[in-house]
Amino acid sequence: MPKRLKQTEHRAEALSKARIVRAAIEILDAEGEAALTFRGLAARLATGSGAIYWHIADRNGLLSAATEDVLAPALVAVGEETDSKATIRAIALGVFDAIDAHPWAGAHLSREPWHPAIGEIFEHIGGRLQAIGVAADAQFDCTSALTSYILGVACQNAANARLLPRETDRGDFLTAMTARWTQGDPDSRPFLRQVAAQLRDHDDRQQFLAGVDLILLGACVKPA
Amino acid sequence: MPKRLKQTEHRAEALSKARIVRAAIEILDAEGEAALTFRGLAARLATGSGAIYWHIADRNGLLSAATEDVLAPALVAVGEETDSKATIRAIALGVFDAIDAHPWAGAHLSREPWHPAIGEIFEHIGGRLQAIGVAADAQFDCTSALTSYILGVACQNAANARLLPRETDRGDFLTAMTARWTQGDPDSRPFLRQVAAQLRDHDDRQQFLAGVDLILLGACVKPA
Repeated sequence: MPKRLKQTEHRAEALSKARIVRAAIEILDAEGEAALTFRGLAARLATGSGAIYWHIADRNGLLSAATEDVLAPALVAVGEETDSKATIRAIALGVFDAIDAHPWAGAHLSREPWHPAIGEIFEHIGGRLQAIGVAADAQFDCTSALTSYILGVACQNAANARLLPRETDRGDFLTAMTARWTQGDPDSRPFLRQVAAQLRDHDDRQQFLAGVDLILLGACVKPA
Repeated sequence: MPKRLKQTEHRAEALSKARIVRAAIEILDAEGEAALTFRGLAARLATGSGAIYWHIADRNGLLSAATEDVLAPALVAVGEETDSKATIRAIALGVFDAIDAHPWAGAHLSREPWHPAIGEIFEHIGGRLQAIGVAADAQFDCTSALTSYILGVACQNAANARLLPRETDRGDFLTAMTARWTQGDPDSRPFLRQVAAQLRDHDDRQQFLAGVDLILLGACVKPA
């Protein structure tokens, strides 16, 4: 094989869409969304912007492809898990963890609720709710509530992690927040006073999953 | 009463915190968050920035006060409604409508999950779940799931309304979205194909409330 052809093949592989998306994810994870430019990406890939445009139309297409890529593992359980409730819980935790690790993906989904990953999540949750035996006329509402809850809480959780300085002590912060919420009249806000310790000590991921289980429980109640 | 004293009183009234916040809300509603500056607000109130700073420390304090103000009506049901489930539904719809009408308030709550309005919502939902008889060890999780669902869906709904050009036909858009989600193999995505008509025709507010009811239903299931 002539040397030249070999190099061309190597170059084509080097500039595959998958490789471009991987490099974009590295930039997004390390420096955040504002740092993603075609110029910076071209420099990282040692190529020109034109070569990238050949694979991906624009910056939004790049963000969209990167989002699809980091959410894909969340749906792996669909093919592996046989229990339907366990599959829904695995999808939920997968989405939570993916967005926690890649908050820019959560921000992108909020701006593009028509993203294919959301259709994919909706499809698989709905299919499993059918398998569990949720009543036909409740399937759409239940799927919608679960999908909205999962994406909404996952995005807010990922955003929360970036709202406070890194050195903030979580327990101290939550204690101070609850104290502000309950200041003044000692008889006011009895519920917040009662759950103050739980607010301080709760684990966000467990709390998220408790909400998923609660919606699943509601979905499985047979109409009286 | 000397004329001068009258004028001073009028001026003090004119620059009350409540009036500043009302003017800020007008700017936020009409022109969005980027348009809110102390200079623009001072011009609207025919005063100087210094006079505003006397009442409110900074721009974030102004956004926070405006957010508290537009969310207050959502909690009116707490004092009026005697049925606990009806109160929770009224709070949920009140938050949904307030954030739908004032999307900047939703964005502010996402950036400040320690905002007093969130403590207030949490308190009143928790209190009503207690009144319904939700098990003591489930109250914190149930309150948290409901609060997260309400705020998450309300914020996303308000954002959605601003994602597409005003002239977009909602039915056409949702039909096209579902078509893209189900394109390709006609056997793929059976659930999305089945609920395509519901996706096209659903009402966001009803859908939101169905989710609230589902979580309430789950919260009221007695442990076996």
